[in-house]
Amino acid sequence: MPSGLRSEREISNWDLSTDVCVVGLGAAGAAAAIDARGAGADVVVLERASGGGGTSALSGGVLYLGGGTSLQTACGFEDSEEDMYRYLMASVGAVPDEPKIRRYCEGSVEHFEWVKAQGVPYKETYYEGISGEPPTDDGLVFSGAEQTKPFCEIARPAPRGHVGMHPHQTGPLLMKHLCASTERSGACVEGDHRVTALVVDDDAAVVGVVAEQFGSERTVRARGGVVLTTGGFVLNDEMLRQYIPRALDCKLRVAGDGDDGSGIRLGVAAGAATLHMEKASISLPVTQPWGLKRGVMVNRHGQRFINEDTYYGRLGERALFHEGGRAWLIVDDEVFQEPDYCKEVAAVGESLAELERELSLPPGSLEATLGVYNRHAANGEDPVFEKQGKYLKPLTTPPYGAIDCTTENCLYAAFTLGGLVTDVEARVLDPEGAAIPGLFAAGRSSAGVCAGDYSSGLSLGDATFFGRVAGRLAARGR
Amino acid sequence: MPSGLRSEREISNWDLSTDVCVVGLGAAGAAAAIDARGAGADVVVLERASGGGGTSALSGGVLYLGGGTSLQTACGFEDSEEDMYRYLMASVGAVPDEPKIRRYCEGSVEHFEWVKAQGVPYKETYYEGISGEPPTDDGLVFSGAEQTKPFCEIARPAPRGHVGMHPHQTGPLLMKHLCASTERSGACVEGDHRVTALVVDDDAAVVGVVAEQFGSERTVRARGGVVLTTGGFVLNDEMLRQYIPRALDCKLRVAGDGDDGSGIRLGVAAGAATLHMEKASISLPVTQPWGLKRGVMVNRHGQRFINEDTYYGRLGERALFHEGGRAWLIVDDEVFQEPDYCKEVAAVGESLAELERELSLPPGSLEATLGVYNRHAANGEDPVFEKQGKYLKPLTTPPYGAIDCTTENCLYAAFTLGGLVTDVEARVLDPEGAAIPGLFAAGRSSAGVCAGDYSSGLSLGDATFFGRVAGRLAARGR
Repeated sequence: MPSGLRSEREISNWDLSTDVCVVGLGAAGAAAAIDARGAGADVVVLERASGGGGTSALSGGVLYLGGGTSLQTACGFEDSEEDMYRYLMASVGAVPDEPKIRRYCEGSVEHFEWVKAQGVPYKETYYEGISGEPPTDDGLVFSGAEQTKPFCEIARPAPRGHVGMHPHQTGPLLMKHLCASTERSGACVEGDHRVTALVVDDDAAVVGVVAEQFGSERTVRARGGVVLTTGGFVLNDEMLRQYIPRALDCKLRVAGDGDDGSGIRLGVAAGAATLHMEKASISLPVTQPWGLKRGVMVNRHGQRFINEDTYYGRLGERALFHEGGRAWLIVDDEVFQEPDYCKEVAAVGESLAELERELSLPPGSLEATLGVYNRHAANGEDPVFEKQGKYLKPLTTPPYGAIDCTTENCLYAAFTLGGLVTDVEARVLDPEGAAIPGLFAAGRSSAGVCAGDYSSGLSLGDATFFGRVAGRLAARGR
Repeated sequence: MPSGLRSEREISNWDLSTDVCVVGLGAAGAAAAIDARGAGADVVVLERASGGGGTSALSGGVLYLGGGTSLQTACGFEDSEEDMYRYLMASVGAVPDEPKIRRYCEGSVEHFEWVKAQGVPYKETYYEGISGEPPTDDGLVFSGAEQTKPFCEIARPAPRGHVGMHPHQTGPLLMKHLCASTERSGACVEGDHRVTALVVDDDAAVVGVVAEQFGSERTVRARGGVVLTTGGFVLNDEMLRQYIPRALDCKLRVAGDGDDGSGIRLGVAAGAATLHMEKASISLPVTQPWGLKRGVMVNRHGQRFINEDTYYGRLGERALFHEGGRAWLIVDDEVFQEPDYCKEVAAVGESLAELERELSLPPGSLEATLGVYNRHAANGEDPVFEKQGKYLKPLTTPPYGAIDCTTENCLYAAFTLGGLVTDVEARVLDPEGAAIPGLFAAGRSSAGVCAGDYSSGLSLGDATFFGRVAGRLAARGR
């Protein structure tokens, strides 16, 4: 057998026996445990850290939900399942998982009520001007590229970032409540347990796990199924080198200690297929506050390459994977304001020609790019990349500056999006598309709603949504 | 068991019994059969068509070899294993398979002698001006991006495209000789046999295959191993939609009837891992003859995006995957000559502004791009994309034209590069990196030397090279 897999025949004694064993207590694991308990199952949650929270507790805490949630309605926004569906199908990457997206959109309104029922508080106010978690305790934000081309023509824009009532990062708030709800549910939470192998019977069904606790082995039998919710692999350098070498250049890896791909590798050992392993969410939050969207982003050829008003995850993905992490946001004196995160200024010049020299861009390239941009911006137009009119202003007021968006000097925040292939029931599939009996996955251990191009809140959103699905189905038993 | 896999216990009778069973008689299969026979093994080759040749026989017939082959030396070119290695490591994609590339470079000189020994004739003359097979019967060409930036600074350029003595496509010549050599070797070649399943024993070792011939099933036992050489999956629309949706837009899929991914799916059913499934070779032969490299290629934003003198596979890869298949080669009256393949002219104008309007490019964008280009080209420089000096000429002689390089109107020729994971011994590996006993693969059923960015001849090159490796190792038995 491969490492990471054990035959049931080798297990002489089960230390614990339960219906559903959840591996990892982040947002997905909590959701799985709570709903498995709700369906009447016994649940054991094994977490390798001493307490729950995982990467979810270190996150911004945004959940991408829509279709007319109570929060959207209270804030005066109309949304429909169909608009949410169209936006996601168009925006999440070249090969969206249609059935999964459909299910996610159908269940989104109900899912938000479930999140509130776990005790997470939401203030029913909208915040404008940030693409992720706001600096205030407001509850609703635009967290993707809904308002920008081409998406604003594909689906009616609505803010779908649902954020707990806390300024800045609300991951701790979200996980405080989800972990408390997990405890209240009666799930047995065991910290300091690192799962090292899945246990399979003679029919290759997953019937339990082997975990390590303080150097000794513990075995847990799971009559209904094992749910892998261990996060992604952004902390595993070897896997990054194999799948996403560019991510190694990112200054920030958005991860708790656990995101080393362990759950993905366990699933693969049990015969699972993987998907989108080369995809990552790459945030480049240079256009925060939004006024900086009036700047012009250029690559090492002095060319624009994106509409600067789009979601900062799209900026990061393009800048890192297509432009090699070489980019600058050009501003003039009128447009400049201090960025929230990307504060390094690479160059300043009294003229664009001077700025171009300072940045070692090809002579004439920046002037040519700004020449075209300014000419159209003066008319409130951007025929090249179709930035929204409100962010169009000719850059003509010296001095000029270049905010450094190179990987060396700017914040690129990365986490992985690929993982185990699952179906809409969160069952883990083998390469032929058959479900592996007794094995489920949710969150970044799995390939989820996002197939490569991110919007804030999709990860916690599908983690909790499909975590619940996994918990309920595992509770039913085999 | 998944479809595509059978237990040995189910096989009541073996119709044939041999040491090595080769599945598919293209270049990789022939090489495997010949060398397995050379090592003393009994060999059965199963080919689903009525005769051998496969996609290899429809190809240009170029083999990418170097390090100082007898042909390179006879043509007066110096090359070294180290220069070939450095070029491949830098050029084949973001995650090159170092051990495989090292082995390929080490064995390249000997491998070419083997090819000649099979009877393939080579004329010891060099042809300049084409990036693949020449219109003459000359034997040696540049078939990659060796002479262009950045590669010419990384490794000393040498022509490494070895082409049989025949004008234009030499795939038929190559396969005529490799198939004849296979017959001479004493391998038993069975046409009209489509392999539908691999047969495994209780230890999951591959011990044979099940094939379909005219509607009835035949079983073949393979004591030493099964070698999968069935080609890629460019004819499988469902797999393309899953892995490379853009490839569906290409006018030409470079493939015989067999390239439906069958061998890859058989290997996966037996537990194999896959790699680079989202990668394809995309040829856009718009700069043939090479004089057209003096043109300027622009995207839908009116921007340049590549050094036009690079290998046409790099043009195609960038134009399709990064620019969405929207590109035009801008020429003036002095530079224009009739392209060999991409003959559609999208627009003609007496001025660049007129051309820009005709192409519906953003107003001013093309003029700005050509402004920068012409200014530097006049000095023999291209600081933006570093095209070689000999292809730099200001485009200032009207009328101007735009050669259509959109997927709708231009030849994009695609084949897939991803497949089963193999090691340097051509053994098929599972996701944990362990070899599946008795299973080998070569050619486009496997992920080979090329990890995404192509040079002509790499596919036939590694197919024949690692086909031989597979044949020899399988002949040794388990």
